[in-house]
Amino acid sequence: MEKTRLEKQFDFCREIDKEKFIGRQTYLSDGKRKENDAEHAWHMAIMAILLNEYANEEIDVLKTVTMLLIHDLVEIDAGDTYAYDEEGKKTKKEREERAAERIYGLLPQDQQEKLRRLWEEFEAWETPEAKFAHAMDNIQPIMLNAATDGRSWEEHGVHLSQILGRNQHTAEGSAVLWDYARQNFVQPSVESGKIKTEE
Amino acid sequence: MEKTRLEKQFDFCREIDKEKFIGRQTYLSDGKRKENDAEHAWHMAIMAILLNEYANEEIDVLKTVTMLLIHDLVEIDAGDTYAYDEEGKKTKKEREERAAERIYGLLPQDQQEKLRRLWEEFEAWETPEAKFAHAMDNIQPIMLNAATDGRSWEEHGVHLSQILGRNQHTAEGSAVLWDYARQNFVQPSVESGKIKTEE
Ligand SMILES: [Ca+2]
Repeated sequence: MEKTRLEKQFDFCREIDKEKFIGRQTYLSDGKRKENDAEHAWHMAIMAILLNEYANEEIDVLKTVTMLLIHDLVEIDAGDTYAYDEEGKKTKKEREERAAERIYGLLPQDQQEKLRRLWEEFEAWETPEAKFAHAMDNIQPIMLNAATDGRSWEEHGVHLSQILGRNQHTAEGSAVLWDYARQNFVQPSVESGKIKTEE
Repeated sequence: MEKTRLEKQFDFCREIDKEKFIGRQTYLSDGKRKENDAEHAWHMAIMAILLNEYANEEIDVLKTVTMLLIHDLVEIDAGDTYAYDEEGKKTKKEREERAAERIYGLLPQDQQEKLRRLWEEFEAWETPEAKFAHAMDNIQPIMLNAATDGRSWEEHGVHLSQILGRNQHTAEGSAVLWDYARQNFVQPSVESGKIKTEE
């Protein structure tokens, strides 16, 4: 028997609980443990609500917040690929496509299409909302890494050139916020040696 | 020297990381650990986006989502008061007022007023947005408790009359969703004996 619309919606709502099991590499501000995808998404959503005045172009806030809340759901199946894991990145796209198919597929047709399009829009990095969402996605962990004095950067031996490379488009979402983050969150860890600058 | 607007905003964004340390009594769907306030807020925000078609009255979705994302921030200072902790509830109001003062107070004036008003609107339980937000706040843990076969209810010896009492206004946000939750999430745990029905 075909499930009702509401049954499908609750199946999805229950399934996404698993995003709370997906660990990231960023330590929380007390340094005691690393954050998970759900916490990361919650944090960025509030940041987008409070900081959207600095977007380079005006954005639809609800659309951006929705994008941020749902864009990591694919990691329930595909896992988190660390920003500086070059091997993992090679298979990321295919793993995430399959995940999107299954997870968004739990929803009624109209909602699965809407969320899937929003995730694809995020990935394409072209609209003002996607650009600003990526700025949040990049700046939030940088803010937390700075709060723990660069601990995650140090543990992974991250080089300044990697951070700058990964953030080459962050200013397209918000020049003001990327400028602030670079000066106030990245630079101190360069000065304390937690971010490497020599080969 | 007075902080800049952006410094105040980032002070707040960094401070709210602490919501991830605030534990709740609900087990995650795998039963391995209990969820925290940030995860709970993330989960409800997505649910509000997907389920608002069932609100009794039409709601402003961004307003409701923002309300859900921020309404537990006071617990960073005041702690989580368990739904069935009658002693803790006596001092809850005063503890949370002080917390709101300090935490929202980190923001620039306009944003602290906006978030504070939104939190007070949630607490007052009068507007369509507040009523629907409370429906999410009540139904999300019921959905998770059902996913772990009533484990948290059993551990706390919760009685059906307590659940129904606590949810006496849930249908004011959404009659459809409360009806679904009662039949599909509460009733099975009544039948399995995880929720007590006798004195
Ligand atoms: Ca991300």
